[in-house]
Amino acid sequence: MMHVPQPGPLPATQQLGPDGRLRHFLTVEGLSAELLREILAVSESFMSVAAQPVKKVPLLRGKTIFNLFFEPSTRTRTTFELAAKRLSADVMNMNISASATRKGESLLDTLRNLEAMHSDMFVVRHAESGAAQLIARHVAPHISVINAGDGRHAHPTQAMLDVFTIQRNKGDVRNLRIAIVGDILHSRVARSQIHALNILHAGEVRVVAPKTLLPADVEQLGVHIHHDMTSGLRDVDVVIMLRLQKERMSGALLPSEHEFYRLYGLTEERLAVAHPEAIVMHPGPVNRGVEIASEVADGPRSVILEQVSNGLAVRMAIMSMCLGARPGGTA
Amino acid sequence: MMHVPQPGPLPATQQLGPDGRLRHFLTVEGLSAELLREILAVSESFMSVAAQPVKKVPLLRGKTIFNLFFEPSTRTRTTFELAAKRLSADVMNMNISASATRKGESLLDTLRNLEAMHSDMFVVRHAESGAAQLIARHVAPHISVINAGDGRHAHPTQAMLDVFTIQRNKGDVRNLRIAIVGDILHSRVARSQIHALNILHAGEVRVVAPKTLLPADVEQLGVHIHHDMTSGLRDVDVVIMLRLQKERMSGALLPSEHEFYRLYGLTEERLAVAHPEAIVMHPGPVNRGVEIASEVADGPRSVILEQVSNGLAVRMAIMSMCLGARPGGTA
Amino acid sequence: MMHVPQPGPLPATQQLGPDGRLRHFLTVEGLSAELLREILAVSESFMSVAAQPVKKVPLLRGKTIFNLFFEPSTRTRTTFELAAKRLSADVMNMNISASATRKGESLLDTLRNLEAMHSDMFVVRHAESGAAQLIARHVAPHISVINAGDGRHAHPTQAMLDVFTIQRNKGDVRNLRIAIVGDILHSRVARSQIHALNILHAGEVRVVAPKTLLPADVEQLGVHIHHDMTSGLRDVDVVIMLRLQKERMSGALLPSEHEFYRLYGLTEERLAVAHPEAIVMHPGPVNRGVEIASEVADGPRSVILEQVSNGLAVRMAIMSMCLGARPGGTA
Repeated sequence: MMHVPQPGPLPATQQLGPDGRLRHFLTVEGLSAELLREILAVSESFMSVAAQPVKKVPLLRGKTIFNLFFEPSTRTRTTFELAAKRLSADVMNMNISASATRKGESLLDTLRNLEAMHSDMFVVRHAESGAAQLIARHVAPHISVINAGDGRHAHPTQAMLDVFTIQRNKGDVRNLRIAIVGDILHSRVARSQIHALNILHAGEVRVVAPKTLLPADVEQLGVHIHHDMTSGLRDVDVVIMLRLQKERMSGALLPSEHEFYRLYGLTEERLAVAHPEAIVMHPGPVNRGVEIASEVADGPRSVILEQVSNGLAVRMAIMSMCLGARPGGTA
Repeated sequence: MMHVPQPGPLPATQQLGPDGRLRHFLTVEGLSAELLREILAVSESFMSVAAQPVKKVPLLRGKTIFNLFFEPSTRTRTTFELAAKRLSADVMNMNISASATRKGESLLDTLRNLEAMHSDMFVVRHAESGAAQLIARHVAPHISVINAGDGRHAHPTQAMLDVFTIQRNKGDVRNLRIAIVGDILHSRVARSQIHALNILHAGEVRVVAPKTLLPADVEQLGVHIHHDMTSGLRDVDVVIMLRLQKERMSGALLPSEHEFYRLYGLTEERLAVAHPEAIVMHPGPVNRGVEIASEVADGPRSVILEQVSNGLAVRMAIMSMCLGARPGGTA
Repeated sequence: MMHVPQPGPLPATQQLGPDGRLRHFLTVEGLSAELLREILAVSESFMSVAAQPVKKVPLLRGKTIFNLFFEPSTRTRTTFELAAKRLSADVMNMNISASATRKGESLLDTLRNLEAMHSDMFVVRHAESGAAQLIARHVAPHISVINAGDGRHAHPTQAMLDVFTIQRNKGDVRNLRIAIVGDILHSRVARSQIHALNILHAGEVRVVAPKTLLPADVEQLGVHIHHDMTSGLRDVDVVIMLRLQKERMSGALLPSEHEFYRLYGLTEERLAVAHPEAIVMHPGPVNRGVEIASEVADGPRSVILEQVSNGLAVRMAIMSMCLGARPGGTA
């Protein structure tokens, strides 16, 4: 196992190249509003690729991207693999726990080896917070690292696809009230969303959760705290439900799934206090009847599947920006 | 687990688009002789691709095909993956039991997600009869579903490659006597073969099996029933041996592999009663000394390896027809 | 399991086509110095591909390469997969133990099937010595077989990338003293290196190991035998450390890792007796503090990561030569 120090605030420059352009994408924390807006704009230009009969662009042809998954996540790996293929890159999937470490190879030796194969990008998923940052700090200058989720810390591509989805449905986030509901404590998605929304000066960001599912530093996150759904959802334009990370929860924080649903599950009734045109989001996979009622997840306000489609465009945008290739530009 | 209702007869239109062209390929049952002949003709045109130095055509470039394997089958997955790559499609392999369901995601949620990634085709292999049909009934309009084998129900691409192999070796099936030998009861391959041969008005179709390995509805299948090899193989032009699906057999139906071979194993001696130019087929993998003697499997009448080669061309044909792309035509 | 006879000397012609060109690459033993030099020259021409922004050449477009791994080796599989992709071939990875054999299919039946899919190349990794040779002896005339490591026997692509690395750093091997240190007995890498260096008339090849880790036939290998590091490394130009194959060692041959390091571990101190410009090599993955000190593995004389980069070029060279395609030539 890799010993990963808990991540402190990341100097913005660690993610940027000397020219100020995106090199790694590890966390949205510390990035400028301008850069986030550029990601959103490039993502928009990739939306048209999916509509073409040939859903491929040659932007990253001849580039080699390694999907390094230290914890399994078929869904996330699939979206990155597909995004890479639609950019015409060569993708290699590696389940790290199952390979090198069996032979006693250290993580850094494995990375050095992949670098020596003239890789261009590592997409990293890891159960420990700070893993992608640690790797980015040690890679060779020609490698970009993308964080595909690290422990409780960050899931920045998910946050960007969420902001992209909000913007496409409801316009500029500066005019919006947005509620994030559920297990904030264990959610890397929530952390990244809050940072992105704050950087983009969202009108109002609320978190709705029991005290036991809020992080100790919640006061510093710049959000409004609600403990019940009625006040938390009142007049919001966007409801973001979080996934109950059952596998990350230890014992006594929560009475039961049933109890959670009774207090925080999103039903049509509860949604009635929100703005009549509010949209409902969820990073998936949905636990029906735990976080959200099926009628809401599948209802007219749900944009959950749009999030999936948008996720491909956003990942294509971030991957191509990190490798210095943009649609219409030069590789 | 998905609850799959037992498949009844499928309305032909469920597999066809509004223009009458193939959209899904779930079962040969209910398809017209004209359509089956079109598949055979398109397959023939793909046979030349394998003979070229560059064994690839750009017909499905930019299309995304998901291999959804709910039961493992390296051999079948490999042929579909290779067929897709030779059509220049992007292929994603997903072992479903090992991924989403672990997180408690329902099958339909998984499918909705893959649809939202702008997939074009699902190739489905499932241990339960009717699974591919169920999926086809629920997918978005832009998705084609191909059945790569569902329970005891159907394996229609295998049946088409078998008919294609018969036709290339022996000409029009209307002039032929064809015997299918072995475990008819558990064989999705046999069901699909019988339907295809009947639709194409094969001269005579026989099944050769002990009563315990025949389905209850065998009388309705439009075949001649034989219980011994001497009468069953007499004067036939084609012998199709089935694989003994040991993993699907429950207990007392069959005394032993040895006993099966003694009664129904295909030996040179038994083959002597067939037409002198009869061909021998088997869907593979062969259980030598159980269904068939090695000298027959490897002998001059065996076209078992031709079936494998033909399978690629037939799968390329069906995949490209479902996605509206034909060699020489437009995508 | 396949029964594999122990490999005897291989007639050189088994690896060459009727035109005298490389067809299979199973072992360096028996190949001519001229052919090895051709491999090194073609590898050199592939080094430039990795330096291009688009790291791909269309030499093997439309070719199908199967990675047949009978024992797991993520690292070796990855280099072959990447080499194939950079040559634009279609690559299929198969973990054989997990697939066909489960259904009771024999190895040769599996190979016949893959051949019938119009494959062009099998890259074979197997725990038993002689496996790749056995397969090469049975494949159809259109298939090339590359040995990616078989038991204790050979790992010829590793040996060629090592010679290539030596030549790039130190020039012609005829002028060099080269020491191979460690577990010679269990090392397919050492066997292949010794053969390659002898064929190319290396100035002096030494093996440095305790008697228990030398093969019985070491006298016939044409090397100088040393049992201690001081004499073994004196004045050498190249030190090749072997990996301690813990998983291949049975019981009592070696006291402990600690003891091995004390006697044969490569430290800065021990390296001091070598030529001042000596280079240090290791096939990886490195067991730090067992075969080699970290300060040496990461030090200025180490070319361990260069070996990895060079390995891609050498594998691209061998794959394209076997399939009759060379950079600048015709496929």
